[in-house]
Amino acid sequence: MDLPTYLNEKVPFREVVEFTITEAAAGHAEGYIEPEPEYSLRDDRFVAAAPVAFTLADAVGAAAVISKTDSLAPLVDMRVDYLRPATADLQATADVLRCGEDIAIADIVVRSADTAVTTARGAYKTGDLSADSPWSVDVSEQGDD
Amino acid sequence: MDLPTYLNEKVPFREVVEFTITEAAAGHAEGYIEPEPEYSLRDDRFVAAAPVAFTLADAVGAAAVISKTDSLAPLVDMRVDYLRPATADLQATADVLRCGEDIAIADIVVRSADTAVTTARGAYKTGDLSADSPWSVDVSEQGDD
Amino acid sequence: MDLPTYLNEKVPFREVVEFTITEAAAGHAEGYIEPEPEYSLRDDRFVAAAPVAFTLADAVGAAAVISKTDSLAPLVDMRVDYLRPATADLQATADVLRCGEDIAIADIVVRSADTAVTTARGAYKTGDLSADSPWSVDVSEQGDD
Amino acid sequence: MDLPTYLNEKVPFREVVEFTITEAAAGHAEGYIEPEPEYSLRDDRFVAAAPVAFTLADAVGAAAVISKTDSLAPLVDMRVDYLRPATADLQATADVLRCGEDIAIADIVVRSADTAVTTARGAYKTGDLSADSPWSVDVSEQGDD
Repeated sequence: MDLPTYLNEKVPFREVVEFTITEAAAGHAEGYIEPEPEYSLRDDRFVAAAPVAFTLADAVGAAAVISKTDSLAPLVDMRVDYLRPATADLQATADVLRCGEDIAIADIVVRSADTAVTTARGAYKTGDLSADSPWSVDVSEQGDD
Repeated sequence: MDLPTYLNEKVPFREVVEFTITEAAAGHAEGYIEPEPEYSLRDDRFVAAAPVAFTLADAVGAAAVISKTDSLAPLVDMRVDYLRPATADLQATADVLRCGEDIAIADIVVRSADTAVTTARGAYKTGDLSADSPWSVDVSEQGDD
Repeated sequence: MDLPTYLNEKVPFREVVEFTITEAAAGHAEGYIEPEPEYSLRDDRFVAAAPVAFTLADAVGAAAVISKTDSLAPLVDMRVDYLRPATADLQATADVLRCGEDIAIADIVVRSADTAVTTARGAYKTGDLSADSPWSVDVSEQGDD
Repeated sequence: MDLPTYLNEKVPFREVVEFTITEAAAGHAEGYIEPEPEYSLRDDRFVAAAPVAFTLADAVGAAAVISKTDSLAPLVDMRVDYLRPATADLQATADVLRCGEDIAIADIVVRSADTAVTTARGAYKTGDLSADSPWSVDVSEQGDD
């Protein structure tokens, strides 16, 4: 199982906020989230809750990093800016700005109805996760299928 | 219906990632998320996915701001730092660092098993949301009960 | 005196880290800083200290916002990512991603020797600064020349 | 020469914005910047320009990290929030929230006249800087005295 497939199929949280990674190669990734009613801030019409765009940004950013490193990339930190409300499906692209041996920086844009609604920039851990890394638990699992 | 109750009961997204606000007064708020298996990054044991702590941070931060302004506070931007994996329930506290007439800044700490696992700092919009604000849609709804 | 000229000529701090705004129109701005030896982290050759790129990012971002609002734009918050060392002059471009009535978001890229070395994203206050705004002091001064 | 002394004495940029580190031990550091007229945004009275607080935050944060790792700690990314104007001297404290083998997170508060004016949170690189790290240039220099 390759890592983008792993992201799409094996992460339990994906059942909660269902993102789909459609592309991940050479430091670029794309994905989307459908506008399910329960992802909304309000009950009369769809305005995506802030964590929905964050979930997509995190996933697509990780996929972009993984496409360069071929190893899991836990999120170290992220900044998100909410520019406009997302009232339709969310489409995201991510590009790796720098991929170092310890940290990669990804730039992410989330669009809804062809307009940028949220931007994000995240730092992801790269390289081998050593035994005392807080996320090393992930590594031992990623190869199983 | 007061605003913290509104956050707990009326936001559809809360059915997706179920946070509970337990306290919100004078610029301070607290809340928690239980460690449901589907909030996990992995299927063999619970390690909270990054958006889970983000969801709690966003909600508790908003509650802290609302406790000072008594009006909805859309998230403008947020930085989150993932310090350690959260392997149990998530407990968060938020404090308003500054509450201006347009923007409030909240500082949020998320703990799991009594250890800080995620910190966040968010800027929330305050004051009346004017007609051309992207989030003004929320305002017209908040009074209904 | 227009505001970009004000930024170039009237801000005392500009004597400390000497940035030049070369363009500011329609939400886009450009500027540069020359690689003075005292802006370096080290004394044997030029590697720009982190605050140098920050200074340029802040100034060019503000100029981009001002070009849309024609009023002073105090910095509310900023995230900077240091991708690579800057070993030559620093050239920056800024673009306004959103310009609301209270907050504008600017995206800034700083390049050195034609390579992106630092990226930044900042939230700037827009609109009239009211009497109880922490930065209202700036407003009363901006028109004088 | 120990590293805090190196920061105080050997970084050329310190001649530009003159910070002083007064304490750095066990992941905690303190320092200050005097309110020189040229550090101001305006020429009629002192209101610190945004990069002044950033410079102090970066330096004190690095000192806190270095106090745990005893090796140089280049800044990877930082978020700064400007809460209030700084109209007197700037005093900062920094505390390391997490110190991993690759990245440390420091939390920094800058006060002026006993009030928090700026907060910052930064990620700093830790551990050995390998040959292909963008900042490895710093390492080869740090031992000289």
